[in-house]
Amino acid sequence: MNDINRQVILIARPAGIAQAEHFAIRHSRVDQPGPGEILVRNHYLSVEPAMRGWIADSDNYAAPVAIGSVMRALAAGQVVASGDDAYQVGDYVTGWFGWQDFARVRTDQVVQRTNAPEMRASLGILGINGVTAFLALTLIGQPRAGDTVLVSTAAGAVGSAVGQIARLMGCRTIGIAGGPDKVRRCVDQFGYDSAIDYRGEDVGVAVARHAPQGVDIYFDNVAGAISDAVLPHLAMRGRVVACGTASIDRWNPWPQGPRVERHLLVKRARMEGFVIFDHMDRYGDAVAQLRAWIAQGQLTWREEILDGIDACPDALAGVYRGENDGKRLIRLV
Amino acid sequence: MNDINRQVILIARPAGIAQAEHFAIRHSRVDQPGPGEILVRNHYLSVEPAMRGWIADSDNYAAPVAIGSVMRALAAGQVVASGDDAYQVGDYVTGWFGWQDFARVRTDQVVQRTNAPEMRASLGILGINGVTAFLALTLIGQPRAGDTVLVSTAAGAVGSAVGQIARLMGCRTIGIAGGPDKVRRCVDQFGYDSAIDYRGEDVGVAVARHAPQGVDIYFDNVAGAISDAVLPHLAMRGRVVACGTASIDRWNPWPQGPRVERHLLVKRARMEGFVIFDHMDRYGDAVAQLRAWIAQGQLTWREEILDGIDACPDALAGVYRGENDGKRLIRLV
Repeated sequence: MNDINRQVILIARPAGIAQAEHFAIRHSRVDQPGPGEILVRNHYLSVEPAMRGWIADSDNYAAPVAIGSVMRALAAGQVVASGDDAYQVGDYVTGWFGWQDFARVRTDQVVQRTNAPEMRASLGILGINGVTAFLALTLIGQPRAGDTVLVSTAAGAVGSAVGQIARLMGCRTIGIAGGPDKVRRCVDQFGYDSAIDYRGEDVGVAVARHAPQGVDIYFDNVAGAISDAVLPHLAMRGRVVACGTASIDRWNPWPQGPRVERHLLVKRARMEGFVIFDHMDRYGDAVAQLRAWIAQGQLTWREEILDGIDACPDALAGVYRGENDGKRLIRLV
Repeated sequence: MNDINRQVILIARPAGIAQAEHFAIRHSRVDQPGPGEILVRNHYLSVEPAMRGWIADSDNYAAPVAIGSVMRALAAGQVVASGDDAYQVGDYVTGWFGWQDFARVRTDQVVQRTNAPEMRASLGILGINGVTAFLALTLIGQPRAGDTVLVSTAAGAVGSAVGQIARLMGCRTIGIAGGPDKVRRCVDQFGYDSAIDYRGEDVGVAVARHAPQGVDIYFDNVAGAISDAVLPHLAMRGRVVACGTASIDRWNPWPQGPRVERHLLVKRARMEGFVIFDHMDRYGDAVAQLRAWIAQGQLTWREEILDGIDACPDALAGVYRGENDGKRLIRLV
């Protein structure tokens, strides 16, 4: 066993999106697990848009990652030493193991058990992204057959799952993505009925054309100008799933936008925030449903694998530059 | 029977709040009702903040009042001629009878039957205002005992009912009103646990002080700067009942404000619009509940009576100037 642990450390708090220079790679010794702990060798590290929020020093759903500590991240790997009878050496696990080679963690940091072939999917479609898509769409969006569902970051890890699940539920789906490649992928790979290129079209005009009866569910991963263009096109009793704010670089100073109250009132519409961590009791059932759809060939996804821990520091900024092609993962082993 | 009908006509469409000069009083002959119609002599005309929306030439929940037509309004009065067997001369009715002495209307314009002593209440606490308060609070706010409920226009016709009903449901209530008289009335007459004067205090600072655990339900009748100050103080899973936008003078050009998505996401909060006209199937039950609370001495209200139809043209503008002391009514008989 390699006893050097390379750890990606947050060394400065960015005002906006964390860039490569906000991280450094530290070499540490590997610690053996104590009672109730395991030592995990990470095979794959996850890169999430939500990391921006985990880093930001502002109101959020968890305490921000401390300066000088390992970057918080989901990862999948194999138990290499165990201080907990429930976990054996060789077990595959996915959990809050951080951007590092080895994680010595309490076993409550394990999110799910996995296996070698599903390790990567457990960080995406069979993990936080797929479960978020399924639960946020169903619990907040409450789709009914025939609804028109509009999805931003429609080709992304969450959005692409939302579009496919909505279609499985009998909805008409419209994607919003950036650039002709992603727009084509929305329709060709993810089965959207149509897609809008927010870089090349006036989003409001396009939404009116693609959804002449209005948008019943807007699954919002971006906030900002795209959402502002969508809201006037909500259908009566429309639902806005507030799942992410990827288009907003920073919340200090707090950004302004067109007021939403009148849209909500006139359309009797609802906007509601969703954070997956509130719904961990449904996680296992959601994974089982997603796995069944995959087995039936009804759910597909894209992954983009970067090799080596040195890819970490710029990986998040790259997602915000729109460079990734599907769920971005870092392969270590 | 006086056969001259004085009618308050909308003669110009205001950019903001309708002022006296946007109306004129026209004298017409009284028409006899045809089959399926009744002729109602109005005793009381209602003045609602929502009239601003009924007049505005923008997206709304009903077609705007046409220029040259009688101002749309609820009114209460007595049937003086009937072309419908279900209504007898002498019956008391409340409905969409407009700002005029006499209304010849189809009987589907009747909202509820009433009686002489309840005519005024049927336009307020036992009518659209009380029913809106009760249904919007319960259906969207979903109050639970112990919740902290914050109400804007807390001394108004809807707000004062919301505060009292929330308290009856075991909630802690905080009112927001303009000026020391209304603030005192919130606590002394309407039983709020505390009240904030938005004219004399920093609303955000005051909300943080009065609701240190956060606001579970914000019943929003105003939108705008008051709401902007409230939203950062939502509790986890807070609910915002979007019931009115009284503080916004005009929606053209569309006003800007601090973005809301992050509040909704971080707090897993919900904002939802409410329009009473979607819930007319529950109207009768709601009135019965409100009447029971009144009979038990648990629900009080204020009315302000202006005399004569000449008071109509400036009556709505006066509400927006904050002049009214409770539900504003025009007495004709």
